[in-house]
Amino acid sequence: MNLAIATTVDAPLDEAVARTKEALAAQGFGVLTEIDMAATLKTKIGAEMEGYVILGACNPPLAHRAVTAERQIGLLLPCNVVVRSDADDPGRSIVEAMNPELMVDVVDNPELKSVADEATDKLTAAVTSLTADA
Amino acid sequence: MNLAIATTVDAPLDEAVARTKEALAAQGFGVLTEIDMAATLKTKIGAEMEGYVILGACNPPLAHRAVTAERQIGLLLPCNVVVRSDADDPGRSIVEAMNPELMVDVVDNPELKSVADEATDKLTAAVTSLTADA
Repeated sequence: MNLAIATTVDAPLDEAVARTKEALAAQGFGVLTEIDMAATLKTKIGAEMEGYVILGACNPPLAHRAVTAERQIGLLLPCNVVVRSDADDPGRSIVEAMNPELMVDVVDNPELKSVADEATDKLTAAVTSLTADA
Repeated sequence: MNLAIATTVDAPLDEAVARTKEALAAQGFGVLTEIDMAATLKTKIGAEMEGYVILGACNPPLAHRAVTAERQIGLLLPCNVVVRSDADDPGRSIVEAMNPELMVDVVDNPELKSVADEATDKLTAAVTSLTADA
């Protein structure tokens, strides 16, 4: 199983983040959290890295079905989507959504499986739409 | 492998959240994000559930080592800690930290293993301290 549903976007980080949010919204995912990991690590420990943003994406009906099927599953919610600069070309960005099948990999629950399958379809559609835009 | 490092605290949700943040801070984890999942699902789709908060905990040196070892690992960062009301007794709360060994389960990388082991020790210490307080 791949950890990520991934693509590369021909755009710098800020534009890639904006496009990613639009693509997620089109699939019913709101962004509940946004962490600028590069800025956080720079501030806290002086570390340097390329632009690196972690979005916490939540599709409320799917999230509700997931926690109803398995109360612990909040440990893997919201669904993280990493948008980061290509270290070799800052004009390009990498977008990676957490593969929801990971939930099924760690929790054996048939109801959760149907939720994960649907989330995977929607996140794949969002990521694919970004690729088509590029 | 257990998905969660878990305990039960003899305190209602708000107090359990506050205690959990203190216990995480004592192990070098700041809380970067806080999602009131119960309120979010109530607002978005009218769903009712017990108090359910998802904290995004980050230990900056460990997070930096993790992304240095494996750029994709932001998909599992920050480390989620769920604090939720016991549905049978609102005077009690359940605290569950994502088991960092999950990272090793999905990404085969020896450097990541040492980071995950250290994160597991620290989160276990934080969760254990809450149990001792109870």
